[in-house]
Amino acid sequence: MTTNLRDLGLSTGKKARLNRILYQHGARNGTALFLPYDQGLEHGPRDFFANPAAGSPQYIMKLAVEGGFNGVAVQIGFAEKFYWEYAGEVPLILKLNGKTEIPPDDEALSPLNAAVEEAVRLGADAVGYTLYVGTPAQDRDFAQYLEVRQAAQRLGIPLIVWAYPRGSAIDAAGGKDSFYAVDYAARVASELGADIVKVNFPHPEKRSGVRKPYDEGYSEQQAIDAVVRSANRTLVLISGGEKAGDEAMLDKAQMSMEAGATGLIFGRNIWQREHTESLRFAARLHEVLDKHPR
Amino acid sequence: MTTNLRDLGLSTGKKARLNRILYQHGARNGTALFLPYDQGLEHGPRDFFANPAAGSPQYIMKLAVEGGFNGVAVQIGFAEKFYWEYAGEVPLILKLNGKTEIPPDDEALSPLNAAVEEAVRLGADAVGYTLYVGTPAQDRDFAQYLEVRQAAQRLGIPLIVWAYPRGSAIDAAGGKDSFYAVDYAARVASELGADIVKVNFPHPEKRSGVRKPYDEGYSEQQAIDAVVRSANRTLVLISGGEKAGDEAMLDKAQMSMEAGATGLIFGRNIWQREHTESLRFAARLHEVLDKHPR
Amino acid sequence: MTTNLRDLGLSTGKKARLNRILYQHGARNGTALFLPYDQGLEHGPRDFFANPAAGSPQYIMKLAVEGGFNGVAVQIGFAEKFYWEYAGEVPLILKLNGKTEIPPDDEALSPLNAAVEEAVRLGADAVGYTLYVGTPAQDRDFAQYLEVRQAAQRLGIPLIVWAYPRGSAIDAAGGKDSFYAVDYAARVASELGADIVKVNFPHPEKRSGVRKPYDEGYSEQQAIDAVVRSANRTLVLISGGEKAGDEAMLDKAQMSMEAGATGLIFGRNIWQREHTESLRFAARLHEVLDKHPR
Amino acid sequence: MTTNLRDLGLSTGKKARLNRILYQHGARNGTALFLPYDQGLEHGPRDFFANPAAGSPQYIMKLAVEGGFNGVAVQIGFAEKFYWEYAGEVPLILKLNGKTEIPPDDEALSPLNAAVEEAVRLGADAVGYTLYVGTPAQDRDFAQYLEVRQAAQRLGIPLIVWAYPRGSAIDAAGGKDSFYAVDYAARVASELGADIVKVNFPHPEKRSGVRKPYDEGYSEQQAIDAVVRSANRTLVLISGGEKAGDEAMLDKAQMSMEAGATGLIFGRNIWQREHTESLRFAARLHEVLDKHPR
Amino acid sequence: MTTNLRDLGLSTGKKARLNRILYQHGARNGTALFLPYDQGLEHGPRDFFANPAAGSPQYIMKLAVEGGFNGVAVQIGFAEKFYWEYAGEVPLILKLNGKTEIPPDDEALSPLNAAVEEAVRLGADAVGYTLYVGTPAQDRDFAQYLEVRQAAQRLGIPLIVWAYPRGSAIDAAGGKDSFYAVDYAARVASELGADIVKVNFPHPEKRSGVRKPYDEGYSEQQAIDAVVRSANRTLVLISGGEKAGDEAMLDKAQMSMEAGATGLIFGRNIWQREHTESLRFAARLHEVLDKHPR
Repeated sequence: MTTNLRDLGLSTGKKARLNRILYQHGARNGTALFLPYDQGLEHGPRDFFANPAAGSPQYIMKLAVEGGFNGVAVQIGFAEKFYWEYAGEVPLILKLNGKTEIPPDDEALSPLNAAVEEAVRLGADAVGYTLYVGTPAQDRDFAQYLEVRQAAQRLGIPLIVWAYPRGSAIDAAGGKDSFYAVDYAARVASELGADIVKVNFPHPEKRSGVRKPYDEGYSEQQAIDAVVRSANRTLVLISGGEKAGDEAMLDKAQMSMEAGATGLIFGRNIWQREHTESLRFAARLHEVLDKHPR
Repeated sequence: MTTNLRDLGLSTGKKARLNRILYQHGARNGTALFLPYDQGLEHGPRDFFANPAAGSPQYIMKLAVEGGFNGVAVQIGFAEKFYWEYAGEVPLILKLNGKTEIPPDDEALSPLNAAVEEAVRLGADAVGYTLYVGTPAQDRDFAQYLEVRQAAQRLGIPLIVWAYPRGSAIDAAGGKDSFYAVDYAARVASELGADIVKVNFPHPEKRSGVRKPYDEGYSEQQAIDAVVRSANRTLVLISGGEKAGDEAMLDKAQMSMEAGATGLIFGRNIWQREHTESLRFAARLHEVLDKHPR
Repeated sequence: MTTNLRDLGLSTGKKARLNRILYQHGARNGTALFLPYDQGLEHGPRDFFANPAAGSPQYIMKLAVEGGFNGVAVQIGFAEKFYWEYAGEVPLILKLNGKTEIPPDDEALSPLNAAVEEAVRLGADAVGYTLYVGTPAQDRDFAQYLEVRQAAQRLGIPLIVWAYPRGSAIDAAGGKDSFYAVDYAARVASELGADIVKVNFPHPEKRSGVRKPYDEGYSEQQAIDAVVRSANRTLVLISGGEKAGDEAMLDKAQMSMEAGATGLIFGRNIWQREHTESLRFAARLHEVLDKHPR
Repeated sequence: MTTNLRDLGLSTGKKARLNRILYQHGARNGTALFLPYDQGLEHGPRDFFANPAAGSPQYIMKLAVEGGFNGVAVQIGFAEKFYWEYAGEVPLILKLNGKTEIPPDDEALSPLNAAVEEAVRLGADAVGYTLYVGTPAQDRDFAQYLEVRQAAQRLGIPLIVWAYPRGSAIDAAGGKDSFYAVDYAARVASELGADIVKVNFPHPEKRSGVRKPYDEGYSEQQAIDAVVRSANRTLVLISGGEKAGDEAMLDKAQMSMEAGATGLIFGRNIWQREHTESLRFAARLHEVLDKHPR
Repeated sequence: MTTNLRDLGLSTGKKARLNRILYQHGARNGTALFLPYDQGLEHGPRDFFANPAAGSPQYIMKLAVEGGFNGVAVQIGFAEKFYWEYAGEVPLILKLNGKTEIPPDDEALSPLNAAVEEAVRLGADAVGYTLYVGTPAQDRDFAQYLEVRQAAQRLGIPLIVWAYPRGSAIDAAGGKDSFYAVDYAARVASELGADIVKVNFPHPEKRSGVRKPYDEGYSEQQAIDAVVRSANRTLVLISGGEKAGDEAMLDKAQMSMEAGATGLIFGRNIWQREHTESLRFAARLHEVLDKHPR
């Protein structure tokens, strides 16, 4: 265990589980590469037409083991139906909330569909919660989050916050992946007690409507540096988002690790390709992580 | 018990009850034919003018026994008032939520009117919950569902989800029985931990407004194959819906079973006919099931 | 106790209390005549200007005893302040919800103001709940109702549902006392587990906007026959509603009992007259009940 | 203790505390004069500019002792910070809800800010609850009230209901102090189980928009007589409201006591004057009460 | 301990903790200087561009120790991650609610993100709650506040209320820092049982739309005198608000202490400067406090 985990004010249970995730899986050097798999709920099966095999959670969990991932994040249904075959081989992150993309998103809220206690029951090593930073439904979101954070604290389960800027006020202020929005989101997760925060890579060039100090010519490296600083003792994971070009992704991964992020959480960029290709790309991401022990 | 049930990550109680439903009733081969009877609440007594005898739950429960059904699904009132006469002869599925068709349906939500604990008290072998996939009231729906799923897990009662696409966004995207909508609904039920999911037969020809990968010329068989795959280790029941022609219904039943569905849940197509006719049609459905042991 | 009560799937406590109400009071033949007295809350004191004496709950309870009623239905305040003087002389029905007529009624909901446990504490033999069938506030109504039904089940207290069609969709479909609306309301109460349902006498001639099968030339007797059938093992009480002509009321009482109703629940038609007149009219109602033992 | 308290169906604890308030303080003859002091919350400090000394709860509590009041009604903050100095010298009525006058009042609701249990902890002899009769927020108001009434019942604490007609429907029907509105409010409090109800003096001349039977030429005495009757075994307190002329107030006090009210609850009419004047006016009110022992 | 604390009706636990804050830290004379640090949540990281070092909670806590502050107020995340290094050196105030500035503020509500019990777990000596006086969401705000106040009472933790006027009705009545609004806010906090209230310095010159008695030519000293009086046995802290000129701030501090306030709570005016400057300004504030022992 590095000084890093030792300094975060963590309870013994959280430290033990984070240690397992960060030092007994993946690169085993304090970094992390996670495989998120909640897109079937968030976007529907349309995400799997590119690589139909990826529609199966069994395929995904096997991929997480083969690719040396530090964890796979799924909803309760797949945790119950599929994780028993892979228990112990790759850490489970139980995603506790989620929603479909169908109804209008003006008052974005990701309702709970599982409890922290269930993560314990299933042998998960962490839980995930999507917080829609900036949504008009902020009060209900914070109320749900409070319940989750307290249960995670009580049970010693690390809490990973998907800190996603959302809502019309965000759209009007640079959008959901502007430097302004991502920086604010990282800070909110940290102030509210997340152990790990998952953010999009910030876009400093999206400056239309952002708050004044962000309306400057920052570089991508400056932006991601600031975001990691704003997360203040909250471990940072950079999200892959929609499938994009390999080199661009690797560049961002590299900049993020330079900035002090703990790791990467890439889903569609991994499994929306053919199997060998997935493993090949995961290996390239591992190369980046190997160079940044924590 | 087939490998099938053994592989679903089920608790002992759920396995015992599903075994009873699937192997000790009906075709006794792992398939299922269910008789749903909540239309008096959902549509009012108007559904019984075609065959007034069907307005009586006693008639229906007797029919379920005579027709060799694997279960009859009713609301709490009829479970309490009528099931005592048929206990042990046909499994009871307690439907836990429901609504009238009277108020506007823009924010469709099916409120709870019974608890899983009551299913236990009444000797039911499963519970049913209607989830309106895509409704603007998604957050309240998921909250209700969470409570039901956790109680069903705790008490070892199988949970059947009526996964019904609903709401204006669904209407604008192919409608409630488009391939897109049904496929998404099956996936949602699986991600959220249903043991069994009840869906409408998908209509791949309804392509107006659907998401891109669904806007192709899929056959009905391709569509139902995909839906069953999307349900990933969640047993699939195909709903009969409004009364339709026998041959068309049997075709769909056949395609569904070919696709790997576990069975059929037909209500109005059964009891909106005269008694002998009901039994005759049930027998034809059994012929389909007999050919697809699980 | 008749076969009737024996066949309803009732718990021992419910059976004991219904037996007391139906066979140890009133006509003592399984029928019932109830005196409802919640109009002071629902309409305000204006209902008592016709007969000011009726403004006093003491007067009403005395009248219930003198007139041989099977029960008197009041809100918690009067149950606490007045019933102690008449305990044992006439059964108490504690009405658990209610509202004033002052605020707009678009989203009709009758909020709870007492609990089933309080009915036990006060020695009541039944509880009453107003369900607004068809209201846009259906989800909150069902949620309240669920709580009441479960407590009544747990404590063995019979549950009487005031099944009242309400809301703009009802207004547009024949109105609150159309055959369509009353028939649906009776069915809903039965599906949701009421022990007794109180409905208005149906008006088959109100056909504007009703669902198709109701848009026929049904007689009043046909309509009330259907409503009692729709109530399926739920005992039916016909409501008096606003004060009307004696002969018309007696005709409806007669038709209702012929149809198989258990009894009548008449308030304003009783106490909005002078005392002797009230008793005289109650006696005429008793004549009808005497002829229809259950 | 008079027959009066004996006949109200009260629990022992409620009887003991009402006995203390009505027979061991003030006129000690079953009547009551209360000093309400929640205007600082309801209207803000602007109410104290007329007599700045009255801004201090210490001044008010001392005044309640000196003026021979039967109780002083304050919110939790002042009960905790100031009552310890006057405990035993004047009964405490803990007002459990309240609101500022700042936000719009269309859906008037007075949210809870203290619990009945806290009244017990502080040695209060009664609790107060503001019910906004006629508000569109009726369902939330009744829900809050139910919780308070049940706790007061369980703990044996008398419950005083501030029965205030409010909302646009009230404004359209004679206004908040019309005979119609006040009469309805008194009845609602009684039906819902208040032990004591506080109402405004009714204005029978406000007839515009009232329900039919109220649109007659009633005298003030006839109106207040009716209101006390509508309160049916609920003790009635007449509210002073805004500061007005002494003789007019004394006339209304006299009429109220003639009608059978239990007493008066005057705040601004007492403390919005200089100290000696306050005591002088309280003495005149006492003269009225002395003449009407209960 | 001064008579002051002895007279406030405090429980032993609250007295012990307030004694620690007011007499064992800072000026140790019953006054207080607090360092609030929740702006990263309320405004986002933009507040730290002026002095990037201040983005780190570690820097802030160290500053609180060096500057002789009586406490540092942070959200749960920073209390968990950073306070363990400074425990015992400066009292912790756990801020229990907060929100981002992103969504529209019409119905301002600051949702809870931590519980009083957590303050105990972390060794905090007080909790903070933001109450938006005048918001249309008053009922939900009061409900949250009630829960916090009761837990603080039960656990003996002092409760500091950030009493902030907010909402369109406030904007229309002089704005959030008018004398009218601040005076009302101080009174509300006191009536609702705050132990300490944090208010903005009142602006008597903002008279447009205020209630009548405030529409006079009051001096700043008269205004702050009145506000402290309105807080009635609730200790008053004056907020610094946005960074302003030193002499203006010191004048207001001086006037506040003259009026009887307990102290100051300055954030951005402290840490939005370079480190030595921060300490120098804190020292000047201490000079004011030293002259006003309580």
